[in-house]
Amino acid sequence: MNVLTKYLEIKSEGEPHMIDLTDEVQSMVGNSGISNGIVTLFLPGSTGGITTIEYEDGLLKDFPAMLERIAPKNIIYEHQKRWRDDNGHSHVRAAVIGPSLTVPFVKGKLTLGTWQQIVFIELDIQPRSRRLIVQIIG
Amino acid sequence: MNVLTKYLEIKSEGEPHMIDLTDEVQSMVGNSGISNGIVTLFLPGSTGGITTIEYEDGLLKDFPAMLERIAPKNIIYEHQKRWRDDNGHSHVRAAVIGPSLTVPFVKGKLTLGTWQQIVFIELDIQPRSRRLIVQIIG
Amino acid sequence: MNVLTKYLEIKSEGEPHMIDLTDEVQSMVGNSGISNGIVTLFLPGSTGGITTIEYEDGLLKDFPAMLERIAPKNIIYEHQKRWRDDNGHSHVRAAVIGPSLTVPFVKGKLTLGTWQQIVFIELDIQPRSRRLIVQIIG
Repeated sequence: MNVLTKYLEIKSEGEPHMIDLTDEVQSMVGNSGISNGIVTLFLPGSTGGITTIEYEDGLLKDFPAMLERIAPKNIIYEHQKRWRDDNGHSHVRAAVIGPSLTVPFVKGKLTLGTWQQIVFIELDIQPRSRRLIVQIIG
Repeated sequence: MNVLTKYLEIKSEGEPHMIDLTDEVQSMVGNSGISNGIVTLFLPGSTGGITTIEYEDGLLKDFPAMLERIAPKNIIYEHQKRWRDDNGHSHVRAAVIGPSLTVPFVKGKLTLGTWQQIVFIELDIQPRSRRLIVQIIG
Repeated sequence: MNVLTKYLEIKSEGEPHMIDLTDEVQSMVGNSGISNGIVTLFLPGSTGGITTIEYEDGLLKDFPAMLERIAPKNIIYEHQKRWRDDNGHSHVRAAVIGPSLTVPFVKGKLTLGTWQQIVFIELDIQPRSRRLIVQIIG
């Protein structure tokens, strides 16, 4: 049994900045010495999310447009009334996308599809430094 | 290799009751004797969800308000036509949030952010007793 | 420590085809020789999703109806302007549902609720052959 903890440091622009993490995660898994298992990516924070998407310019606009439909920026949030930090919508969007993604790997290779990338999406209103946890188990 | 199965018993009020599970999960992980690994929380049921959020009064209203936008309570559900149990919206909301959350831990400590809590959200219309699975691996 | 990789081959109809995977996953876990652990299901692709739901005819319409509200088929997608493959909505829906589901098992049995099934949902516009990864760890 092996558990290896790695960290992935990223600097985001403000919302909705989507960052392709695939190559870095693949590299960490490939260099881990663990051939078969799962990798769990986790964001320690409540205003961003992790998922997969085809990372191309069109969808980088279409996915945030969906988030704007379900949690619009300019409606009234109770969070805003209390904290005045202008990111109520960021928290709501993050909670539905989720902070965690688990991907299997086989023979050191992530089992992603050809047109499927691992992405972090910054949902907070300002640029942030993020340190994601990359937990490799196998 | 160690696998430890724990159960987290909760009593929910009806929808949309959000319960902070962070301290209990941290305690189970801390007492597990496993220092590094992942914990998978799982709801055995189809009318609740597990995610993370900043657990404060504002967002406890804002997150359910988003769910009401995407799966309103008072529209017609096919589920309702067949089963007459008034919880079609509960099932739809649960399927999009998801029943599972995986969080890495390092040196016995969950890798959550400072303002990030693990929450169960009751989406069913009545109070329920729930027994979540807490699977600790490392 | 044991890791076992299995593959689940499915043929989907076009959107929104929901396929109940519970029996096959349970069978793979039950035959794995691993008694306690977690199973991660993963879709290598960006136009489908995996979640749990009560698999009954009503919800098989209600869940897609929610997806149509949050990512309607007949609005303009930037993805469409570039690629003309008519599945912008499919990608957006897939990214919010997610490609991955992790379920604990105990004594060879998935910890699902009685009315909770594991489902793959085809979100692409045409029938597709899919090969899901079933990573069993314990």
